[in-house]
Amino acid sequence: MKIDYNLQFNKNNKLQHFLNIENLSKEHINEIIDLADKYIKNESNKFKDLEGKTIASLFFEPSTRTKTTFELASKRLSADFINIDIANSSALKGESILDMIKTLEAMECDMFIVRHSSSGTPHYIAKEVGKKISVINAGDGIHAHPTQAMLDMYTIKKHKGSFENLNVSIVGDILHSRVAKSLIASLKILSVKNINIIGPKNLMPENINELGVDYFSNLEKGIDNVDVIIMLRLQQERMKEAFISTEDYYNNYGLTKQKIMSAKKDVIVMHPGPINRGIEIDSEVADGPNSVILDQVTVGISIRMAIMSLIFKNK
Amino acid sequence: MKIDYNLQFNKNNKLQHFLNIENLSKEHINEIIDLADKYIKNESNKFKDLEGKTIASLFFEPSTRTKTTFELASKRLSADFINIDIANSSALKGESILDMIKTLEAMECDMFIVRHSSSGTPHYIAKEVGKKISVINAGDGIHAHPTQAMLDMYTIKKHKGSFENLNVSIVGDILHSRVAKSLIASLKILSVKNINIIGPKNLMPENINELGVDYFSNLEKGIDNVDVIIMLRLQQERMKEAFISTEDYYNNYGLTKQKIMSAKKDVIVMHPGPINRGIEIDSEVADGPNSVILDQVTVGISIRMAIMSLIFKNK
Amino acid sequence: MKIDYNLQFNKNNKLQHFLNIENLSKEHINEIIDLADKYIKNESNKFKDLEGKTIASLFFEPSTRTKTTFELASKRLSADFINIDIANSSALKGESILDMIKTLEAMECDMFIVRHSSSGTPHYIAKEVGKKISVINAGDGIHAHPTQAMLDMYTIKKHKGSFENLNVSIVGDILHSRVAKSLIASLKILSVKNINIIGPKNLMPENINELGVDYFSNLEKGIDNVDVIIMLRLQQERMKEAFISTEDYYNNYGLTKQKIMSAKKDVIVMHPGPINRGIEIDSEVADGPNSVILDQVTVGISIRMAIMSLIFKNK
Repeated sequence: MKIDYNLQFNKNNKLQHFLNIENLSKEHINEIIDLADKYIKNESNKFKDLEGKTIASLFFEPSTRTKTTFELASKRLSADFINIDIANSSALKGESILDMIKTLEAMECDMFIVRHSSSGTPHYIAKEVGKKISVINAGDGIHAHPTQAMLDMYTIKKHKGSFENLNVSIVGDILHSRVAKSLIASLKILSVKNINIIGPKNLMPENINELGVDYFSNLEKGIDNVDVIIMLRLQQERMKEAFISTEDYYNNYGLTKQKIMSAKKDVIVMHPGPINRGIEIDSEVADGPNSVILDQVTVGISIRMAIMSLIFKNK
Repeated sequence: MKIDYNLQFNKNNKLQHFLNIENLSKEHINEIIDLADKYIKNESNKFKDLEGKTIASLFFEPSTRTKTTFELASKRLSADFINIDIANSSALKGESILDMIKTLEAMECDMFIVRHSSSGTPHYIAKEVGKKISVINAGDGIHAHPTQAMLDMYTIKKHKGSFENLNVSIVGDILHSRVAKSLIASLKILSVKNINIIGPKNLMPENINELGVDYFSNLEKGIDNVDVIIMLRLQQERMKEAFISTEDYYNNYGLTKQKIMSAKKDVIVMHPGPINRGIEIDSEVADGPNSVILDQVTVGISIRMAIMSLIFKNK
Repeated sequence: MKIDYNLQFNKNNKLQHFLNIENLSKEHINEIIDLADKYIKNESNKFKDLEGKTIASLFFEPSTRTKTTFELASKRLSADFINIDIANSSALKGESILDMIKTLEAMECDMFIVRHSSSGTPHYIAKEVGKKISVINAGDGIHAHPTQAMLDMYTIKKHKGSFENLNVSIVGDILHSRVAKSLIASLKILSVKNINIIGPKNLMPENINELGVDYFSNLEKGIDNVDVIIMLRLQQERMKEAFISTEDYYNNYGLTKQKIMSAKKDVIVMHPGPINRGIEIDSEVADGPNSVILDQVTVGISIRMAIMSLIFKNK
């Protein structure tokens, strides 16, 4: 399926959906970060911005963590949040995805939060629903996870101030990671100096050369003198494909206190969570002074509030 | 179990529960439709009518779609909505339905939304709870689905203006359909001109003659010159009993663009959903100009808001 | 694991968590009961006390009933309530409890409601989270169920006025009952005259003598002339350990209309629910004039509202 990256904009080039990082401008990204920053600096945790709006979560793939952040973001904006229990839903009765979303549209839902194991599903839904509905991509297949990338950009800005002079390394299974793809797109739009990707060769995409990144099979070389290290979550089910055992992975790519010394002293270490301690990252690092992992979680709520709120403002 | 159809009225003949269509007057029905119409025409989707009230959903039979409409209706009226997870509930611990509802009553819930596979369960619960609690029947066995019938009446009124001159056909498994029973009762109270029921003979009730309807085994004859066609959902598990294959059913009773030409040009086509496309109805018809299926979904929220709100006004 | 019973107090000896009855003062208990009483006497069921606060339920052990009371209490105080679906959560992805609570803390949850099959888990969590988060123990292993004990104390006070002259009997499996332990602690703090525990010897704790209670193997002797009888729920899985059949249990310890005549005429009969009718208690008693079982359920909401609300006031 060819994905239309412009689908998320209305005629005035404003976001009406949030489906992918590609085709966003620096201004789009900064507008979201600035709004998230306003929410986070506000003393209150409760806003009336989305009162009377209905947000429906459609998680075809289970995820407590991401779903909870969207539920919290919705409730803090005073929206009504409805969790559609796909597992027990009329999917059982043979209703197609299309009929399901048309039905939710007819129920006057205003926004769908969609996670699906097939790349492009949120785009498909966004294309099929009427103009009143907005769709947010909460992760589609191995394609994109744009709200995760946005919260990561906000985290970096918070700690590093600006992007232009940064060297950033992404470590892990780039090939299958939707987070990695959205991260690389974001970092390039924000004009970071250098992006390194690190991991076993057979967990790298074929088109490395076209990505505008540098590949390293060696962790210490790949994080040499960098400002930001983003660890990816190890999907144990991918290890077989990569012919690599958990032990070998840890020995080669597990981030330890020792290895982190190759990076700058004030390097920040990020991870989308949940962490596999002792596999992709040591507890000493995950809980250490360079880790901003829990910071990512906190800004994850306000970034989602900002994206949701902005889309309604653009209507 | 003999069902008491007057159980839903208080001493002033006002609704205190909503359990069945039988014994409603034209005035009862029109009062609900008129209130639903007010909600739908209001620009806002958020009302304070049920603020401080607690609505508990008790779905002993799973149903994402109907439960979601009640959840949305509750939230749009600012009620607190509690979903009692029956599957994981103390039913496991041997608590009887009666103890469960007495407990929820003691928790000062104000209304129960009940779906159960046994006919009469909502009536049983309504009889057992105290006067402060109201019960809404969200579908009981093969007996009744009164809120579905009410939203269907509202849909018909919206498109046809009045009921007296209408010819209405209901197509499918009348025998096992709780929707059909509530529909026939509604249409008779509203004095439609003619009601046809259509389907294989062995999916028809034995007492057809007492129903005041006309039976047709042939679809095209049964929808000849009618104003409204209501398709029922095919329960695949019933096909065996009816000795009819899905193919045969489609060939005989599947609503196609061709067959619909027997009806009036401005016939409206309805279906409670979810649709079995290509079995009981063709996509050309379901998505075509005569279909009001998504309209039914939309008014389904405001009808439920109206019923809930009216019951609290009657207290 | 050694449990620190002082963990729940801040420097001013005010509750910042609610983990156990032990170490509470009479004043602590009365403050909660008085606040619950205010909530229950208020005509409204909706308060703004926790607006903008986020309450997360972490039920590692399933419980519809207790979880529902906390959900209702949260909503009636206008808090945002988030149910963390542990079964489907990232527990599956190997995330430890500690990482999960740190993540929820980073999401700026304000309070965790914790039930766990291991004694001491809520204390462990309370110790690990930062000062902004409060933890309420909704039942841990065979150790404590302090909110149940508090609602029982409120129920007793409502019906008996004061505690000092009361004779109270607790009947059932004291050994494995977290409710019993919290009850005995509460009753002693409130200086009741006498506490009897009744049940098969092999369902009694070894340290009976240290508990400051009187043990009776005979029900009628144990409830002779008492003011309050608290029945415990029979855990069928414990019967094997106790070498006692359900029939024998009923014959010896099932509370019948006949046996209750040993107690005072105005004795109140309590049970935490759900009830095993015909095993530990007869319907004639459970639904009879001495039963205050449904009263317990009602005050259970306001007690939880009071505890939650008080903790936020103490911040």
